[in-house]
Amino acid sequence: MPVVLHALGDPVRLELVRRMAADGECACSPEGLDVPRSTLSNHWRILREAGLTDTRADGKARIMSLRRGPVEAEFPGLLAAVLGDGEGRAGA
Amino acid sequence: MPVVLHALGDPVRLELVRRMAADGECACSPEGLDVPRSTLSNHWRILREAGLTDTRADGKARIMSLRRGPVEAEFPGLLAAVLGDGEGRAGA
Repeated sequence: MPVVLHALGDPVRLELVRRMAADGECACSPEGLDVPRSTLSNHWRILREAGLTDTRADGKARIMSLRRGPVEAEFPGLLAAVLGDGEGRAGA
Repeated sequence: MPVVLHALGDPVRLELVRRMAADGECACSPEGLDVPRSTLSNHWRILREAGLTDTRADGKARIMSLRRGPVEAEFPGLLAAVLGDGEGRAGA
């Protein structure tokens, strides 16, 4: 639990999670985030190591998605509360 | 949101929050936590600055309680999900 909360406890990482939740997936360097690529890579690493993301390759690019199902199973209601959408279970 | 998640994203701080939730209040240096007092003070500071605790004085001691109501109002369902008790609203 603290590992996941720490992973979510950063404004950039929270935004990445919100984008994955809203769009289904998120590219490594999404539009509109004024953050250096190396810093973004570090954020993605923290999310990945906390078990929050899956990664697929699209050519040279990496596309991340939120592991809603496993996270919801392990921490019921957490994503819904964090995303503030009351629909944390959608697509789980 | 990320500030509160960061505050909760530490095993010691999460335990302090669990104790306040379970017992209603928690003393500055609770039993059974093998953590130096200075470290505990820092953890309490982080929880306090995140808006998670109220503090009352009991002589020279400080007694902390969880600000369930305000936290629940601002982040519905978050405490319940973090505490894993499904009763995050009790006493709010």
